Amino acid sequence: MKPNKKYTIADYVKGITTGNRVVLGQAITLAESTLPEHRQLAVQVVKQCLPLSGKSIRVGITGVPGVGKSTFIESLGMYLTAQGHKVAVLAVDPSSARTGGSIMGDKTRMDELAANPNAFIRPSPSAGNLGGVANRTRECIILCEAAGYDIILVETVGVGQSETEVKNMTDFFLLLMLAGAGDELQGIKRGIMEMADAIAINKADGDNLAKAKTARGDYARAVHMYPADDAGWSTRVEVCSAIEKKGIDTVWTIVEEHNLMLKTKGLLNERRKHQNLTWFRQLLGELLTDAFNTHDESGLHDAERAIIEGKLLPSEAAQKLIADFLQN
Amino acid sequence: MKPNKKYTIADYVKGITTGNRVVLGQAITLAESTLPEHRQLAVQVVKQCLPLSGKSIRVGITGVPGVGKSTFIESLGMYLTAQGHKVAVLAVDPSSARTGGSIMGDKTRMDELAANPNAFIRPSPSAGNLGGVANRTRECIILCEAAGYDIILVETVGVGQSETEVKNMTDFFLLLMLAGAGDELQGIKRGIMEMADAIAINKADGDNLAKAKTARGDYARAVHMYPADDAGWSTRVEVCSAIEKKGIDTVWTIVEEHNLMLKTKGLLNERRKHQNLTWFRQLLGELLTDAFNTHDESGLHDAERAIIEGKLLPSEAAQKLIADFLQN
Repeated sequence: MKPNKKYTIADYVKGITTGNRVVLGQAITLAESTLPEHRQLAVQVVKQCLPLSGKSIRVGITGVPGVGKSTFIESLGMYLTAQGHKVAVLAVDPSSARTGGSIMGDKTRMDELAANPNAFIRPSPSAGNLGGVANRTRECIILCEAAGYDIILVETVGVGQSETEVKNMTDFFLLLMLAGAGDELQGIKRGIMEMADAIAINKADGDNLAKAKTARGDYARAVHMYPADDAGWSTRVEVCSAIEKKGIDTVWTIVEEHNLMLKTKGLLNERRKHQNLTWFRQLLGELLTDAFNTHDESGLHDAERAIIEGKLLPSEAAQKLIADFLQN
Repeated sequence: MKPNKKYTIADYVKGITTGNRVVLGQAITLAESTLPEHRQLAVQVVKQCLPLSGKSIRVGITGVPGVGKSTFIESLGMYLTAQGHKVAVLAVDPSSARTGGSIMGDKTRMDELAANPNAFIRPSPSAGNLGGVANRTRECIILCEAAGYDIILVETVGVGQSETEVKNMTDFFLLLMLAGAGDELQGIKRGIMEMADAIAINKADGDNLAKAKTARGDYARAVHMYPADDAGWSTRVEVCSAIEKKGIDTVWTIVEEHNLMLKTKGLLNERRKHQNLTWFRQLLGELLTDAFNTHDESGLHDAERAIIEGKLLPSEAAQKLIADFLQN
C-alpha cells in the first residue's frame, strides 16, 4: 500500500479521526517510510492525533513461534470486539527477522479477526525504518488510538531484542507459554519471564489440559519468588486454549484488573509520561548514533576490529572517534 | 589519594606489572579522574596493561543492603587468598548512591581482607566520572589483572541500574539473597533474578538454617522454570553463611564449574570480545549524548517538559534537536 500523494495533513487527520481504515493504513505506511518527505508529513499527522491518543489499554503479547500466538490474538480480538471494543493489532518484529513470517503473514493467519469491522490488523513492518521499528510502532499506537481503537495489542516474537521495547510502550506485558515443552523447547530468551505481568499457558485443551494445569502451578510457584514490580504487581499465571476459545476471558480479566490498579494508584499516567521520555531519549540516541555511524564507517569498522583483537582500548577509541566526529 | 604528578606512563606500567599496590591505586585514581590530562594519561596506562589482562575470573556480586554482602566478599576473599589466589574487589555503585555507604565504607567493612597482602580492595568511586562509572570499572579490571590479580570481584548494590552493566563486564553473576525475608523485604529490582548465574542464600546459620534450606528448594524450583542462558547454563542455588564461613567453598565451586564450561565451549573469549564491543558502543553513545546534552541544555529541557505534558511528539522533537546539533 503506497501513501496517497494527494492527501494533505488535514485529509489524513480527518480520515483517521472518523475511523477510515484505509486512511489509517496509509498514514501508518507514511510513518513507516524512510523517505524524508513522508516522514515529515507523518510527524505532522501523528502530532495532530496526539491529543486524541492515550485512551486505550496497550498490551504487549509475546511468545515463541509455535505457542499459538496468532490464534490467541485472534480469539482475544474476537472476544473483545464482541464486547463492543475496537481492537488494533500491531506487530513489532520486522518481517525479515521472523521465523517463517511474511509481510502479509499476520493478516492471513487471523482470517476471522481480519474480516471483523471493529478490528484493525497491521502486519509486520519491514526492517530498517528511520529511528527503528520501535519508533514506528509508538507512532502507530497514537494513530490507532486517534482512530478510536480502545485496545491495542502489540505482538512480538519473544526471542529477540524487541521485548524490552514493547514492555516500554505498553501498559501490560503478556507472555504466552506451553506446558511441558521443556525449557530448551520454549525458546524464550532469558530475562523475558521476569518482564511479564502475566503468563498464559496456551493449548490447555484435550490431552494437554492436565499438563497445562500442572505447569500453571509450577510457574505460579516460580513467579511467587520474584519480587513484585514497582507498582506492587506480582506476575499472574493462567491457562487458556486459544483454539477452543477457553480462558481468554480470564486472561483479559487480569489485564483489566491490572489497568484498574494502575489507574487507582495514579500510575498509568506516570508510566506513560515516563515511556514518552524514554522514547524521546532513545530516539535521540538512535539518531545521534546513525549520524555518527554514517560519518566515518570505515574508521568505526577498523576500531571495532582492533577492539575485538585486543589491540585497541575501547575508551581510547571511543574518545578519539567522537572528537573527530564533533570537529567535522 | 591523588595521582602522583611525577609518574610517567612507564612508571605506572612498571609499578602495576610488578604488583605495587600503591601505584595500582594511583593509576585507578587517574582513571577515575575527570580532568582531561588525567584521562589521557590513564588511557595510555590502561592501554599498555591491556596485553597483560584477561586472565582472571571476573565475578559480579549483587544483593541489597542487609544481605551481608561485605561479609560474604570478605569470607570469599579470605578463602580464595588462602588457596593462593590474588583477589581484587571493586565496587561499581557511586558512593553518593549507596544506602548508608561512604567512600571508605568498603574497606572498613572488610577489615580482615583489607589487611591481606594478596587482596586489593577499591572502595566505591564517586559519581560523575567521564564516560560513566561502568567505563571506569572496566578499566580498573584491566589494571588489576595486569597487576596479577587472578580473581576480580565486582560489587553492586542490587537495587539500581548498574546490575546490567556488571553483568556485561563479568563472567559470572552472583545474587545474594536472604531466606524468609519476604518478597517486599528483599528489595531486589525485578529482572535481576533472571540475570543470576547463581543465587546464594546467605545467613544460613543458627535458627535461620532450616529456613534457608527451605528457601533453597523454593528458589531452585523457581529458577528451574527459567530458560537456560545462551551457553546452556541454568541458574544454581546454594545456601551459605558468610559470617560462619560455611558454604563459601561450595559457591566458589559453582563459579569454577561455570568458568570451565565457558572455556570448554570456547565461549569465554567470545563473551569477552562481545563485552568489549558492548563497552565501546555504549561509551560512544555516552560521549555522543554528553556532547549533545551540553550543546543546548535549555532546548532539551524545554522539549522534555513539552513531551511530558503531551504537547510535543517525541519523534518530531528528537529530529529537530538532532538536526540543530549536527548543523553546529
